[in-house]
Amino acid sequence: MSQQTIPMPENLRDYPAIIQINVQWGEMDAYQHVNNTVFFRYFESARIVYLEKIQFVDLNQNGGLGPILGHTQCKFIRPLTYPDTILVGARTSELRDDRFVMDLKIYSTQQQAVAAVGTADMVIFDYRQNRKAALPDSLRARISEVEGRSF
Amino acid sequence: MSQQTIPMPENLRDYPAIIQINVQWGEMDAYQHVNNTVFFRYFESARIVYLEKIQFVDLNQNGGLGPILGHTQCKFIRPLTYPDTILVGARTSELRDDRFVMDLKIYSTQQQAVAAVGTADMVIFDYRQNRKAALPDSLRARISEVEGRSF
Amino acid sequence: MSQQTIPMPENLRDYPAIIQINVQWGEMDAYQHVNNTVFFRYFESARIVYLEKIQFVDLNQNGGLGPILGHTQCKFIRPLTYPDTILVGARTSELRDDRFVMDLKIYSTQQQAVAAVGTADMVIFDYRQNRKAALPDSLRARISEVEGRSF
Amino acid sequence: MSQQTIPMPENLRDYPAIIQINVQWGEMDAYQHVNNTVFFRYFESARIVYLEKIQFVDLNQNGGLGPILGHTQCKFIRPLTYPDTILVGARTSELRDDRFVMDLKIYSTQQQAVAAVGTADMVIFDYRQNRKAALPDSLRARISEVEGRSF
Repeated sequence: MSQQTIPMPENLRDYPAIIQINVQWGEMDAYQHVNNTVFFRYFESARIVYLEKIQFVDLNQNGGLGPILGHTQCKFIRPLTYPDTILVGARTSELRDDRFVMDLKIYSTQQQAVAAVGTADMVIFDYRQNRKAALPDSLRARISEVEGRSF
Repeated sequence: MSQQTIPMPENLRDYPAIIQINVQWGEMDAYQHVNNTVFFRYFESARIVYLEKIQFVDLNQNGGLGPILGHTQCKFIRPLTYPDTILVGARTSELRDDRFVMDLKIYSTQQQAVAAVGTADMVIFDYRQNRKAALPDSLRARISEVEGRSF
Repeated sequence: MSQQTIPMPENLRDYPAIIQINVQWGEMDAYQHVNNTVFFRYFESARIVYLEKIQFVDLNQNGGLGPILGHTQCKFIRPLTYPDTILVGARTSELRDDRFVMDLKIYSTQQQAVAAVGTADMVIFDYRQNRKAALPDSLRARISEVEGRSF
Repeated sequence: MSQQTIPMPENLRDYPAIIQINVQWGEMDAYQHVNNTVFFRYFESARIVYLEKIQFVDLNQNGGLGPILGHTQCKFIRPLTYPDTILVGARTSELRDDRFVMDLKIYSTQQQAVAAVGTADMVIFDYRQNRKAALPDSLRARISEVEGRSF
């Protein structure tokens, strides 16, 4: 079982985490387009890969700190339909005192165009003290390393 | 905010657990019917209420034992569409050595007819020893009590 | 089958469309909270009821015009868990040349607090000419009537 | 963007339609396993590819005939978790007067084992006359050709 190699589009050049997903027929709704909630599922899947890259998944490795989704948005540019293979990119755009903000982008290989862009606020949560926490310096360093730039 | 009282249909008379769900528009697929996977979500939601009734949700209360879905099936009788309010019933049909078997039924109040029937095998799992276990007598007793009959 | 009457919270007083949804167990993800994509499903379900109220569902009634979701966002305030009954409100906050903007709000009756707020841009699309269109005066009038105020 | 080539497991040798899916994190439920409804989504996606192979998707090509899911079942053998890449196979096991019956199988490449098997009854429906229809000879022939055997 092999899948074809898809050339990386220019649109996703600066995204450290990129995943490839085959659109499933059942993700379309009664308007025969991929339902809007599924775009957020695609975004989430790219975020998870990004979190793995910056090693911010395991609470124990991070002193009980983990990310909570505080806000997310999506701008729908082109409808998606089955069949299609999409690429979803995730990157950090901004570091704040209590969170990092991510850019998300969905690229349709069938349409050879960007189908949607979005953002997600990843709030730092202290699961031991059950409250928001400051963005730790160690995480800042790992994000800078993964992104290849300082913030 | 009040919802209308729906008379209990004869079809669900012998079901100890019945839930009421408003079909959501986004549960329909490109064929403009509620997608088949959603029927299994409805079944699951009724099973959860049934498990609460027989107090088989909390592992600690049951010596580390809990249910695992071993098999499930659905016969699709009528397509569901938005808008509709459905009733979903769950009952136990059979006790076996290592599981109990449930009947599931979806009733469409808009169509005033049964839309689907199904079954689910709830296998007893010992989470401490990580293997299947025998159906405990205490659970047999609670199921008999909830069902109002012996097996 | 009856459901309890839920008093309308002050938080949703100005929302012309309000729906009641029972959170389903299977809507929770591995973090044991209702998954973020499900919040957008709840929003969508409230929007559909609103669109029915302003009679903007049937393309034939509207000269081939219908709504397209151009942008949506959600601010997550409190996590939702099963069991809970939520109320979801939808209203129009702003009319623009080519769209109307909606406010969305999710209220948890278990927590007696707002769990999330959001917005959605409903872009007017001309399905016959396959392009964006201007917000028709007839729709402005119906929105004003449903909202009980002029924009 | 390339994905690794996955060797075809012996388990799926006789399946004419096989799809490859990356399990998404958000498909896990509160028990931290891929939710049972998602297995049916995977099955559906493999069926769609199979229907394309036997050219039974376009109603116009088939005299107004199309498939309706009459029954489906799944036996859960091993839980699936993120991350994993699965292969899902679909084949026809039996032709009946008014339907064809399919076998479905999910193979976990991470576990190198079959995670689930299932079946689906694809009932022939005449969308012009709005009733069940007989399995057409042309479809029998195309199924036999795709399967490489007579039934």
